[in-house]
Amino acid sequence: MTEAEIQAAIHDMGRRARAASHALVRLTTEDKSRILLAMAKGLEEGSAPILAANARDLEAGRQKGLSAAMLDRLKLDERRLGQIAQAVREVAALPDPVGEVLAQWQRPNGLRITKKRVPIGVIGIIFESRPNVTVDAATLCLKTGNATLLRGGSEAIHSNVALAAALQQAGEAAGLPPDSVQLLPFTQRSSVEVMAGMDQHLDLIIPRGGKGLIEKVVSCARMPVIKHYDGVCHVYVAPSADLEMACEIIVNSKAQKPGVCNALETLLVHREIAAQFYPRVAVALRQAGVQMRGDEQALPLLGEGAQPASEEDWRTEYLDLILAIKTVASSREAIDHINAHGSHHTDSIISTNADEVAQFLHEVDSAVVMHNASTRFNDGGEFGFGAEIGISTDKLHARGPMGLAELCSYKYLVEGSGQIRA
Amino acid sequence: MTEAEIQAAIHDMGRRARAASHALVRLTTEDKSRILLAMAKGLEEGSAPILAANARDLEAGRQKGLSAAMLDRLKLDERRLGQIAQAVREVAALPDPVGEVLAQWQRPNGLRITKKRVPIGVIGIIFESRPNVTVDAATLCLKTGNATLLRGGSEAIHSNVALAAALQQAGEAAGLPPDSVQLLPFTQRSSVEVMAGMDQHLDLIIPRGGKGLIEKVVSCARMPVIKHYDGVCHVYVAPSADLEMACEIIVNSKAQKPGVCNALETLLVHREIAAQFYPRVAVALRQAGVQMRGDEQALPLLGEGAQPASEEDWRTEYLDLILAIKTVASSREAIDHINAHGSHHTDSIISTNADEVAQFLHEVDSAVVMHNASTRFNDGGEFGFGAEIGISTDKLHARGPMGLAELCSYKYLVEGSGQIRA
Repeated sequence: MTEAEIQAAIHDMGRRARAASHALVRLTTEDKSRILLAMAKGLEEGSAPILAANARDLEAGRQKGLSAAMLDRLKLDERRLGQIAQAVREVAALPDPVGEVLAQWQRPNGLRITKKRVPIGVIGIIFESRPNVTVDAATLCLKTGNATLLRGGSEAIHSNVALAAALQQAGEAAGLPPDSVQLLPFTQRSSVEVMAGMDQHLDLIIPRGGKGLIEKVVSCARMPVIKHYDGVCHVYVAPSADLEMACEIIVNSKAQKPGVCNALETLLVHREIAAQFYPRVAVALRQAGVQMRGDEQALPLLGEGAQPASEEDWRTEYLDLILAIKTVASSREAIDHINAHGSHHTDSIISTNADEVAQFLHEVDSAVVMHNASTRFNDGGEFGFGAEIGISTDKLHARGPMGLAELCSYKYLVEGSGQIRA
Repeated sequence: MTEAEIQAAIHDMGRRARAASHALVRLTTEDKSRILLAMAKGLEEGSAPILAANARDLEAGRQKGLSAAMLDRLKLDERRLGQIAQAVREVAALPDPVGEVLAQWQRPNGLRITKKRVPIGVIGIIFESRPNVTVDAATLCLKTGNATLLRGGSEAIHSNVALAAALQQAGEAAGLPPDSVQLLPFTQRSSVEVMAGMDQHLDLIIPRGGKGLIEKVVSCARMPVIKHYDGVCHVYVAPSADLEMACEIIVNSKAQKPGVCNALETLLVHREIAAQFYPRVAVALRQAGVQMRGDEQALPLLGEGAQPASEEDWRTEYLDLILAIKTVASSREAIDHINAHGSHHTDSIISTNADEVAQFLHEVDSAVVMHNASTRFNDGGEFGFGAEIGISTDKLHARGPMGLAELCSYKYLVEGSGQIRA
């Protein structure tokens, strides 16, 4: 196919997705639940072609020399497919946010205004290798009445095509409008640009993947993009902190799952407690296998194995068992450091001083600000959202954990009895 | 100045706006009200330099051959400045949306989560000739704790610089952080591109102006853009309609102020009532000076002066005393026509059939859907919002009338007692 033919094909998919979105609006909560349960069953009962497609991707991956870790992320088997199907059943069981009345009031002229939650319309999802994202994204979008146009990475193309076909086929048998779940059969880099340019068909794009992918989408998208950028997360230990609690929270924030965006990257410690606290936390961090990179004041107190930190460390998301450590003279300095060097993701203060806590929570400009808690709690599941499509680092529309409600828009219903404007 | 110097200067303004935004977060509602009242007073008491600057713009405009209407839009005098100052006082008196608790809940592990409304941060406003936008946009953003970077058109540059200086000066004397209100002293087209590219400093851009300006911003912006595009608004008259009411709503929607985005552009009439209704509404429309463009079925019934409509008319925002008129066979056809040809802005059904009304309100994919009311009511003031920065045609973050709440973001406060993740 030529570039022009690919472009025309993607535009046609966009047009059909828009038509599907209008049909999706007419489904009830019960309709959507029935369809989601049918999809879950379809994934399990139709596992043979999905696993065969996945075997092709794995074979191609081995030939391309993908790492064992990447091959493992790509791999599907009956057990994993069962887990994916189970997650779909859980989405089906969640409350439906669509139709919720967000506000209602009457104007002096008698007009009654209702602000109601509605689907967004058509959502484009651009993602990298993991094939479970196909199912995850499509079903969360369907639950909220949105049509999806999915574009996955080349490593998982056969698996993705098979999964999307299974979802659409099982869904249609249960009443899903045609074209509600479409996966691009193209993995050319230009297909991202085509999607990002068609704001007449897509209301939103969500890139799920590394910084390069997000950057690519941001640079060419004409429609809103919800970004899930880095988490350069901080814990600040104030002089009044319970130091035992601080050690536990720091180790948990850093080491419980270091490869994720809500893991701790920079520790800030008030200088008043430096001499007392650094040796203590260093023991706990060493025990957890964490490499320390400290500033001048911290370094001699951290002991064995600690390295000097550079300016670059204050802006780095390691996603690894490495921790930058800086000493500050005040909570003011801690707040300013976080606002200037962080990524506005998740920041926590360990303190027992109410005024200082209130100031930190108020002035740190991050999606989630915490007191005496691990940064790892910035998560849709931990917030009780039931499901999440990611953790937004944007400030518009969705900030922080992005659940079903954030996959919706709203509209106003204005009911009158002949009112005209004077 | 070279392009590189202009770029560096705009980036520097962006950096300073970001710093101002962190200081603005510390202001209380009372602080902001005091500053806004001082700004209003500053505009009135400092009128001499503002009017002198405006005289320079008017003189330049006359030399450039601007139309009388454009010169009038540009013109400031003591009375208009007094009205602008009065509008600032009204903004000061509105309730402060910042700090409002949007939701609060406790998790089984004891974490208390609070979702709180906060300022967005730094908002870029790019606008065309009217100098009152400088004050309007800056004060609405200040009320919501945001710093602004304003970029106006070349026709009003002297007025805009003088107004922004008056706001910042009077504001600072009352406690406004430096650089909270900055106006670009550049009107080169490249300055729009520079602003649209600096997503590290601007959280949002709002273009206020014609389609060309919005399109320009959309095509190069890296940050979210809230768009106020066309209003191709519809009224659909169903068979059960009160025809007298329908005539009044149609004339009001079309003719009360034809040059605005919530004015009616296309009338849809059910064929069952065509013979009865068209002659009647035609009389009312002719009386209001409206030119009619009808489809084949409508044309012979509309009588004198009506012109045939072309396909193009169904997508046109006339912003003038012209009305496209189409006959439909069902409310299904009306809904599909609106979703396919409209601009998802404002659409109204005139009907007494509850099922049909419910279907229309549910399925028409527009920011504001109405029953038995004039489309002209899609307006922040008419909704009771007190002030509006525009009517968003986006579906993300803000849809429809955009008031103070829509100039805010939110964040989550998570308060614990040492919780770590298992």
